[in-house]
Amino acid sequence: MIGGGRDAFIGAVHRMAAGLDGGIELVCGAFSADPKRSLASGRDLLLSEHRIYPSYLEMLAAESELPEDVRMDFVSIVTPNHEHFAPAAAALRAGFPVMCDKPLCTSLADARELERIVAETGLLFGLTHNYSGYPMVKEARHKVAEGALGKIRRVVVEYAQGWLAGDLEATGQKQAAWRTDPARAGASCCVGDIGTHAAHLTEYVTGLTIEEVSAELTTFVDGRRLDDDASALLRLAGGARGVLWASQIAIGEENGLRLRVYGERGGLEWHQEEPNTLLMKWPDRPRETLRSGANYGHLSSAAGGATRLPAGHPEGYIEAFANLYRSFHGALVDGDALDCPGVHDGVRGMAFIEAMVQSSAHDGQWTKIRLGEA
Amino acid sequence: MIGGGRDAFIGAVHRMAAGLDGGIELVCGAFSADPKRSLASGRDLLLSEHRIYPSYLEMLAAESELPEDVRMDFVSIVTPNHEHFAPAAAALRAGFPVMCDKPLCTSLADARELERIVAETGLLFGLTHNYSGYPMVKEARHKVAEGALGKIRRVVVEYAQGWLAGDLEATGQKQAAWRTDPARAGASCCVGDIGTHAAHLTEYVTGLTIEEVSAELTTFVDGRRLDDDASALLRLAGGARGVLWASQIAIGEENGLRLRVYGERGGLEWHQEEPNTLLMKWPDRPRETLRSGANYGHLSSAAGGATRLPAGHPEGYIEAFANLYRSFHGALVDGDALDCPGVHDGVRGMAFIEAMVQSSAHDGQWTKIRLGEA
Amino acid sequence: MIGGGRDAFIGAVHRMAAGLDGGIELVCGAFSADPKRSLASGRDLLLSEHRIYPSYLEMLAAESELPEDVRMDFVSIVTPNHEHFAPAAAALRAGFPVMCDKPLCTSLADARELERIVAETGLLFGLTHNYSGYPMVKEARHKVAEGALGKIRRVVVEYAQGWLAGDLEATGQKQAAWRTDPARAGASCCVGDIGTHAAHLTEYVTGLTIEEVSAELTTFVDGRRLDDDASALLRLAGGARGVLWASQIAIGEENGLRLRVYGERGGLEWHQEEPNTLLMKWPDRPRETLRSGANYGHLSSAAGGATRLPAGHPEGYIEAFANLYRSFHGALVDGDALDCPGVHDGVRGMAFIEAMVQSSAHDGQWTKIRLGEA
Amino acid sequence: MIGGGRDAFIGAVHRMAAGLDGGIELVCGAFSADPKRSLASGRDLLLSEHRIYPSYLEMLAAESELPEDVRMDFVSIVTPNHEHFAPAAAALRAGFPVMCDKPLCTSLADARELERIVAETGLLFGLTHNYSGYPMVKEARHKVAEGALGKIRRVVVEYAQGWLAGDLEATGQKQAAWRTDPARAGASCCVGDIGTHAAHLTEYVTGLTIEEVSAELTTFVDGRRLDDDASALLRLAGGARGVLWASQIAIGEENGLRLRVYGERGGLEWHQEEPNTLLMKWPDRPRETLRSGANYGHLSSAAGGATRLPAGHPEGYIEAFANLYRSFHGALVDGDALDCPGVHDGVRGMAFIEAMVQSSAHDGQWTKIRLGEA
Repeated sequence: MIGGGRDAFIGAVHRMAAGLDGGIELVCGAFSADPKRSLASGRDLLLSEHRIYPSYLEMLAAESELPEDVRMDFVSIVTPNHEHFAPAAAALRAGFPVMCDKPLCTSLADARELERIVAETGLLFGLTHNYSGYPMVKEARHKVAEGALGKIRRVVVEYAQGWLAGDLEATGQKQAAWRTDPARAGASCCVGDIGTHAAHLTEYVTGLTIEEVSAELTTFVDGRRLDDDASALLRLAGGARGVLWASQIAIGEENGLRLRVYGERGGLEWHQEEPNTLLMKWPDRPRETLRSGANYGHLSSAAGGATRLPAGHPEGYIEAFANLYRSFHGALVDGDALDCPGVHDGVRGMAFIEAMVQSSAHDGQWTKIRLGEA
Repeated sequence: MIGGGRDAFIGAVHRMAAGLDGGIELVCGAFSADPKRSLASGRDLLLSEHRIYPSYLEMLAAESELPEDVRMDFVSIVTPNHEHFAPAAAALRAGFPVMCDKPLCTSLADARELERIVAETGLLFGLTHNYSGYPMVKEARHKVAEGALGKIRRVVVEYAQGWLAGDLEATGQKQAAWRTDPARAGASCCVGDIGTHAAHLTEYVTGLTIEEVSAELTTFVDGRRLDDDASALLRLAGGARGVLWASQIAIGEENGLRLRVYGERGGLEWHQEEPNTLLMKWPDRPRETLRSGANYGHLSSAAGGATRLPAGHPEGYIEAFANLYRSFHGALVDGDALDCPGVHDGVRGMAFIEAMVQSSAHDGQWTKIRLGEA
Repeated sequence: MIGGGRDAFIGAVHRMAAGLDGGIELVCGAFSADPKRSLASGRDLLLSEHRIYPSYLEMLAAESELPEDVRMDFVSIVTPNHEHFAPAAAALRAGFPVMCDKPLCTSLADARELERIVAETGLLFGLTHNYSGYPMVKEARHKVAEGALGKIRRVVVEYAQGWLAGDLEATGQKQAAWRTDPARAGASCCVGDIGTHAAHLTEYVTGLTIEEVSAELTTFVDGRRLDDDASALLRLAGGARGVLWASQIAIGEENGLRLRVYGERGGLEWHQEEPNTLLMKWPDRPRETLRSGANYGHLSSAAGGATRLPAGHPEGYIEAFANLYRSFHGALVDGDALDCPGVHDGVRGMAFIEAMVQSSAHDGQWTKIRLGEA
Repeated sequence: MIGGGRDAFIGAVHRMAAGLDGGIELVCGAFSADPKRSLASGRDLLLSEHRIYPSYLEMLAAESELPEDVRMDFVSIVTPNHEHFAPAAAALRAGFPVMCDKPLCTSLADARELERIVAETGLLFGLTHNYSGYPMVKEARHKVAEGALGKIRRVVVEYAQGWLAGDLEATGQKQAAWRTDPARAGASCCVGDIGTHAAHLTEYVTGLTIEEVSAELTTFVDGRRLDDDASALLRLAGGARGVLWASQIAIGEENGLRLRVYGERGGLEWHQEEPNTLLMKWPDRPRETLRSGANYGHLSSAAGGATRLPAGHPEGYIEAFANLYRSFHGALVDGDALDCPGVHDGVRGMAFIEAMVQSSAHDGQWTKIRLGEA
């Protein structure tokens, strides 16, 4: 693991998620750019001291020298955005598959470079757009794919949070500090941190790419250097239209990722804070409430396989996150098909961020999402 | 009453709403452009035959001749959009106050002309943006006005329906037919019919005007001549930003008008399908669920006065509609302050429709809502 | 109308409900045992003074003398419980059909006497167990009747309120005062006022009679003379089992009447505070959300005929109440079948109260609901 | 681990829960009474073969011989009910602390014997009434304990499932088979399996003991030998009254454990299927929605310490279960206070089952919960 030292949030999530199903064990780490902090963090995790490294470069070098059955099998990168690219590139070049936190990096150019490296090395690369790990998100994707909704017309997606409604970064809060710092977060705070999740979820469920955006990014908190709220109109492949709203200043909202999709024959709705429920809407019969649960015969195998418990036993964020690791592990060990976002999703995410920022800078001009020349 | 004959939907609502509190009685009507239909409709309503008129012009003429204590006190206009202007103008000029269904008419020019006539005649004019009649909408407005949310930053408003997802007008369904016909509905179907409600609700609750829109109107049903879905980014007075989505093709949605407002100190949420509940959101204490009901000490007098029953006894659409009539009646009879939308709201509504249509025609260009020269 | 003077709650509801559909007009009343109060109340309602009566006996006598086309067509009784029997008996004997508030009276003996009078006079008699007027309650009844749930096994019904959690009667609040007074309310406060609604709803929806109860009635507020909370186990016809809970001390609850029914093939759930929704539960397919609304093809005619508005336009308490009056009016004027609770429901309600009180007095002994010898 | 072989449900939950926080590792097991199945199950879990034992007695003997730093630190017992007592007693006598699934065993006598052994050995004993591990359950307990609700008056608790609505045991389904078999489940199916959870939750949150029950146990499925539905009136210490309903035949219900508590000053409500929400109800101010999440300042330390993620990131069943293990681990390793149900809760549970069965057998006679002579 690279990053995820004391006080980190997402590093602990990665560890719980990776460990949940018993197939993955944390064996080494470079948990901080500060060697002392890395050491302390590794000790907290009961690692052998010789495998707690002062830097990721030393980790990659040392682990490469270990016998194959001892050496780490892959690397998890859980650092802030600006420290995704270099470690990911280095790990891949050292021969290690990579599981990387999102967004992929801080520029489209870097993203495309990483995509090239993944292609060259032929190694597995996972990107933790974790919301796609929820069973009912997989069910939603399945419903669209099998045509239950007919041709898609309209998407409404939102990701509302309120935790940055005040000047939290001024208090030294670590999570707020790096996300609002252009040097560490990239060109956007709100779009990069949560807007990309909303965009990814949209594309994952509908199977359609977002082609153009007309956006307005706003910074509501005085002195903040990046956006803390964004809204956009979307044009998707095939003529579907979308609205996307992401906000970090929506007071009282916690982690309100919500997706609604309407097609010619039906609609669906999913909300991350009640993740085990999927609403299906029909023109001529009552609304249905689909529920996750290992014992539900009427769910797709994609959804059924992503649950661990009978219906009514809530599974949450960690379990969904763990589904990505489980799939990554299955692909790595057993050669199973990978059901986990990858480097191409990361490239699309960076292109989305850049299009949003650019559209907003041009007074909402419709702006194409361009991945760059192949 | 003008319009509202057999098969009409909103005419019956006006009658139930007007009659609910016992102060208003239907005494005459011109219920249809077809005199036979008007007569049949009036008989259904148990009116004296001599006060069932073949046309509104004859009604206005005849009623004007009646003694003051017999003559109708005001006129309700419940026709399709294109037949609002002429009857309203005629009624006002004949000295009758008017309660008119929304939108006000079919062009901004006509709307401004009506506004002039109202000013000249000095007569009461009500416009049934009925959602502002709900107690918890009044409470929401009160909360914003008293500063509970602080300065407003962000509005998310939507009005989702699914009843026009198919080509209903082709079946001859009357409600669908006139709404999708430019000659009767005006320049827009979706924006005119429900988008204006969303816009009015936004302005009513926040007390802020929508200044600019960047919109995309879409027609999803083949052959339909007007929009059946619309989304827009909004800029409101004082720097607040908004998203508005209205749709008639959102399968499975019934009458999903929902408003969320976020300010510097708090947020609120209201949903028309659960109208007796208002959610209040705070940065530092639990979310609160305010509930309408005549016995709730903690509600504002505006909300309290708009309820008829104790908490937990659901009041709905008709009761909210009746609140507009009750206020209109109170203003007419007792000179009370009018808490009912009026002709100026109607002018704003028409300007909103025109700005939405124009922005969409110019690829989403930000377009100011201009009321025209005063 | 008998009762329903100034400050009364249910009298105003009866008036709004009766008037909603335009077929019923209030023409006279004896609104209070205090002639001055009756007169003032009648003036508030804009009645002709000569038809505002100082007592119900004078009203019955005077109205009987009027020409048939002027004379009132039926009587509504909206007094406290102890003043139901005598006016109802007198009205019937004077030849007037009766619409009476519930519970029917204050003893099973009186109830049976009323039933005899109704039989003798052959006049219409309605009892406002108003919750059976909701469209989705009718739909629930229909679903059970058509066998969608299979044989019924289990009922869970509750009616939770919190308004009597403190000693409200000590403040002189009129509604609290009579309900907690044995002389005016009868043998029970909580069971009589709301428990009977829960029992009636159970029998109305399931079509099964409650045969035996094992009850515990409790008085939580010091000094109160009647029960303010009751719970009971139920045995229904055919072997179904039930739980009933009614409370007036459940702080924070408003008017929480909720029914769940489970059979061999499915289940259903309805909650009065969201009355337009009916949940259907199945063993092998997703839960369905049925919604009221005049345009829903998949509802029964019983439910469809009890709505006035399209789906998503909330109808509430007054509209449900109005459905009873509409049916009563249809039966009276057009000879339609009456879909409104009647005197026999009232007899069952009184027998239910007596069984609950008796069981509780005998430490929860299973007690049969006996209507007495026929 | 004792039990939890292939096809077991709760064994896998225990393993995920124990491992979630990184402090507990599965080192050995006797996973089945069938040595081959035990071996296969242990291999699935990647255990060293020499620590996969053919029986729990062999496991206890062998592990006792291992060096202290290798030897297992405690035993988890996840077998069906009838195989709790003997392994638990043996493990304790061999010096191993025990984490045992609920209910404690199959008779009050055995339960009391286990309580004696725990007292004699002085070893830690945990019982996985896992619902007490939810953060918002801990918050609820805290709210009652600090007096926010005032003196408790009324409890309504229910645990509704539908999975046994048909004759599932006839299909050979393993979970259904042992639960409906008196030889393996004990004197009750429904009360033992889920009713005890409801009773424990009630006592955990209110801090009051259930003193007496008046119960009716029913078997709705033909041929089933134990109850599949139970309802009871409760009398709690201090005069509070309760209703308890547990069912396995409530079609469409998943794992519907729900608790409502009302006191003299407020009420609360919690539902297991939306576990991160706690509703607080007040007589004079709006209902509050408390939400779990590590960053919520207004929650008690008990609730805050039981969360791993920020608000809005759903934590579920496994996380709650893990809280018991985390507390057990903290008590074992660091001597922290144990916040996990123990053997005394198990004794109360067995006494509750026996009282319910006995009351039902005596036609609902009020029956005291007697723990037996100390």
